[in-house]
Amino acid sequence: MLRLYDYFDSGNGYKVRLLLHQLAIPFELIELDIMKGETRTPAFLAKNPNGRIPTLELEDGSFLAESNAILFYLGEGTAFLPEDRLARARVLQWMFFEQYSHEPYVAVARFWLKHMDLDERRRAELAERQDRGRAALGVMERHLAAHDFLAGGAYSIADIALYAYTHVADEGGFDLAEFPATGAWLERVRGQPGHVQITQR
Amino acid sequence: MLRLYDYFDSGNGYKVRLLLHQLAIPFELIELDIMKGETRTPAFLAKNPNGRIPTLELEDGSFLAESNAILFYLGEGTAFLPEDRLARARVLQWMFFEQYSHEPYVAVARFWLKHMDLDERRRAELAERQDRGRAALGVMERHLAAHDFLAGGAYSIADIALYAYTHVADEGGFDLAEFPATGAWLERVRGQPGHVQITQR
Repeated sequence: MLRLYDYFDSGNGYKVRLLLHQLAIPFELIELDIMKGETRTPAFLAKNPNGRIPTLELEDGSFLAESNAILFYLGEGTAFLPEDRLARARVLQWMFFEQYSHEPYVAVARFWLKHMDLDERRRAELAERQDRGRAALGVMERHLAAHDFLAGGAYSIADIALYAYTHVADEGGFDLAEFPATGAWLERVRGQPGHVQITQR
Repeated sequence: MLRLYDYFDSGNGYKVRLLLHQLAIPFELIELDIMKGETRTPAFLAKNPNGRIPTLELEDGSFLAESNAILFYLGEGTAFLPEDRLARARVLQWMFFEQYSHEPYVAVARFWLKHMDLDERRRAELAERQDRGRAALGVMERHLAAHDFLAGGAYSIADIALYAYTHVADEGGFDLAEFPATGAWLERVRGQPGHVQITQR
């Protein structure tokens, strides 16, 4: 059985849990507390030298890291990842956008507000990150005003990747009412068969 | 003919130029000066709403963004991207690592040192980013001490993605002498057929 090393409040981990539920693939969940350094122990670094969750342990005992690489691996050959070469590249375009232009701002603002005491320098950096997060949400908004889903004309792992932190962006100080097309897309994602919430193990 | 919108000093753009040269695919290069805001004009935002280079214009007139998604698109069906499902996922694992754990530190430190006047807050942030960049180089070093290439047992788009900014990391204040296995890998990458330098158009 697949074994998923995860931290419960992580949107990156939620991406993988959501797809596994939608694919009806059973898995064992091993929860690690990143706030207690449980992903930086020698035992965990032997599994993922970058010391991050989610990390997936495959049935052959090897490990795969990076949430979006795990989504691609699990999605291959399913309806969640298109076959067409260009459509697949567009799925990846949105997934790299997510990790470079969205997550470091939308997710990190949420993490800092939920978990950290911010000194003056961090508060200034938070405001910068929120500006960049709004810019990323604006890029999604313009696309979703004209498309039901992010890539390939159907729900895919690109939607899962961007849903994970967008749907809890309010916890990072973002007002989703400014992004109505994105709000309508969040509802479409929530309406997919087998959808589970971030609180679902 | 493919048309590549690029900024000459960008490692992200270099990734695409390097692969196009190695695949012997002719392309037209359109240089944009990011320092003059040329990627934030209405005309360019119509091509890539995220306002970033590299952006590839395909022969059908559509656009593909995100350097690593472009590498995947161009690499599909070639020796630069393995066929095996798990090997492909490991290529993507390293490419997501590059965009999340490496580029924001190694490349951004280089960009700031080359192009910006840093005030006191930015200098503190630079030191933090250099710490994280060294951590990313350490993750690569441990892997490359035991592997000739990053994924799949052969030179791939994962090596191109990580070579781009690693080979100029000294310009970001990193000392590559601390990472000898990475230095040997840089030499192996440079020795691949059709290799071109970052200064090659």
